[in-house]
Amino acid sequence: MPAQVGDALADVDTPALIVDLDAFERNLAALAEAVRGKRVRLRPHAKSHKCPEIAKRQIAHGAIGICCQKVGEAEAFVAAGITDVLVTNEIVGRRKLERLADLARSASVGVLVDNPGNVADLAAAARRAGSTLEVLVEIDVGAHRCGVAPGAPALELARAVSSQAASGLRFGGLHAYQGAAQHLRRPAERRAAILRAVECARDTRDLIESSGISCATVTGAGTGTFLLECNSGAYTELQPGSYIFMDADYGRNELDSGAPVFSQSLYVWTTVMSAPAADRAIVDAGLKAFSVDSGLPLVADRPELECTKASDEHGVLQVPIGAEKLRVGDKLRLVPGHCDPTVNLYDWLVGVRDGRVECVWPVSARGALL
Amino acid sequence: MPAQVGDALADVDTPALIVDLDAFERNLAALAEAVRGKRVRLRPHAKSHKCPEIAKRQIAHGAIGICCQKVGEAEAFVAAGITDVLVTNEIVGRRKLERLADLARSASVGVLVDNPGNVADLAAAARRAGSTLEVLVEIDVGAHRCGVAPGAPALELARAVSSQAASGLRFGGLHAYQGAAQHLRRPAERRAAILRAVECARDTRDLIESSGISCATVTGAGTGTFLLECNSGAYTELQPGSYIFMDADYGRNELDSGAPVFSQSLYVWTTVMSAPAADRAIVDAGLKAFSVDSGLPLVADRPELECTKASDEHGVLQVPIGAEKLRVGDKLRLVPGHCDPTVNLYDWLVGVRDGRVECVWPVSARGALL
Repeated sequence: MPAQVGDALADVDTPALIVDLDAFERNLAALAEAVRGKRVRLRPHAKSHKCPEIAKRQIAHGAIGICCQKVGEAEAFVAAGITDVLVTNEIVGRRKLERLADLARSASVGVLVDNPGNVADLAAAARRAGSTLEVLVEIDVGAHRCGVAPGAPALELARAVSSQAASGLRFGGLHAYQGAAQHLRRPAERRAAILRAVECARDTRDLIESSGISCATVTGAGTGTFLLECNSGAYTELQPGSYIFMDADYGRNELDSGAPVFSQSLYVWTTVMSAPAADRAIVDAGLKAFSVDSGLPLVADRPELECTKASDEHGVLQVPIGAEKLRVGDKLRLVPGHCDPTVNLYDWLVGVRDGRVECVWPVSARGALL
Repeated sequence: MPAQVGDALADVDTPALIVDLDAFERNLAALAEAVRGKRVRLRPHAKSHKCPEIAKRQIAHGAIGICCQKVGEAEAFVAAGITDVLVTNEIVGRRKLERLADLARSASVGVLVDNPGNVADLAAAARRAGSTLEVLVEIDVGAHRCGVAPGAPALELARAVSSQAASGLRFGGLHAYQGAAQHLRRPAERRAAILRAVECARDTRDLIESSGISCATVTGAGTGTFLLECNSGAYTELQPGSYIFMDADYGRNELDSGAPVFSQSLYVWTTVMSAPAADRAIVDAGLKAFSVDSGLPLVADRPELECTKASDEHGVLQVPIGAEKLRVGDKLRLVPGHCDPTVNLYDWLVGVRDGRVECVWPVSARGALL
């Protein structure tokens, strides 16, 4: 454990993942404020934090429940008292289906489908467990990952789900997440992508409802675009996750006017372990302390320094000519390139306010791969 | 836990990290064979596997101990019965120094320095713990990460360490790891880089010894170059780590003639969770199941398929025209781009032989960041 409640930030051992609680709470409030009075529910994505303490705070700020991606995540959150979980993913394989259906005996559990065989497997698992699963049909609204095509293929699956009502499946609606739009840099690009997603979602919903099947939920949206889905009239539920933490990659998005500004709250706290040259310092955080899929981290406390390289346990910082030198033992906050896979590297989140550790939260679903 | 001993591989839950035990054992034997009769000791790097069961097998194949990078790793290995650990890293900060010095009461513990202040801190910690730390001076032999310059700066540090003999520091020698050479693709490039490293190491050793300080150990080398260091006459100890597993990045190295061929033994076992289009399938392994710092994974069982994208929990496979389609539920082995940070994402290594699970080993030092 890198810290105890009451420790000074300067004494927190490194590398550690710290959360600026003031910024974190501003982010919680900013999302709640942004959707106030709108006809949408909030179901934030817990894959970003994997931390029940955070889920509880999101629910206290008006969320109706959470999303997660893995059965193991859902189990960790239900065990911690979260009662409404949507697994925004297709779940395949006998053991996972059994666990999912079992979980639905003690919580409201939803799951996605994009394949008729999977509908039958879910129904069999729910029947065996004696539970009810809410099933949403995932449609591909432009991200080209999972999901059936909008329109007739989605209707067909909705019918397949509805026909299994006796076996414990309840058709919930559509999952229409445009993940590829979240990091388009310009507001106009994001608007265009979400406009198409909204059309797909609305047309498919209308098609399903016109065939006599109620399609109560249309869910999706992320931190980069949620206000667009919110104002679309088509989406009933929003799933942003990263907004509580933010990261360097989201920081590169140009903001839409009127969109709430979320603050960076998540940092990798690191120590200079070597300063072998005037222009170079080495910190004790590398590929096992931050994810680099969306680029190297930024140096929050010294933006003139550049992280130029990372190896397994080392980060290399370039110190420009004329900049104040780093000394062995100096501690710095890094902004990770991508928050979600970075959080997954840690067992603890260290909450800090006014330079003191206020809480140390377990990342309970860290490594919940199954 | 993704599997039980005796399970068929087909029943191992996904994503899981599996080890082909035949290939793994061939790799253990191949390294032992490559250095047989040479005047070098083997001290494999355990940062790659973080798994005491593997360390024990390396020692059974002639290793004198292990390397690791973090105090927490060293603690995990000593707790599991490994008695000789070299932390190939500078250790900074009061709490870590205390833990390191404490550990040296129950095992032979070495550590690196590249800074005189750190020498004093190590001495103070060893004095307080009443233990002895073996200290090696890290020299920068071309990787430009940590380490003092070869020659006089290294001698100065060696003197500083030797002067602390009364306080429980023992000067062990030089750490001269050329990490940047490991993935140079061509044998001639690697030879040139290691030739320079060997010169630096030998000249510095001679300088230190000529000043009356014994410099018994010169340690370094990785999977990409170890035979060069082995045959140099200057290195006394070799630290390869990845050789037991290998990865896609090492697979891109052109091999030197005469170098042992290590086999891929580490795979991410994954399930097709969605097959929404003829040319695309989605597997249940993404950025939280493999590291992408050295590129996306290869599809071992279907090399004609390309992993074109990874998001947090999804991998996108491109299926070329004419190739056999993937179906939901199909399982595949992926070769991770980089083994070390991939292993760090898992709590278990599933050892497989002849299609059956033979062992499930805990990755005891997973997440040992401190």
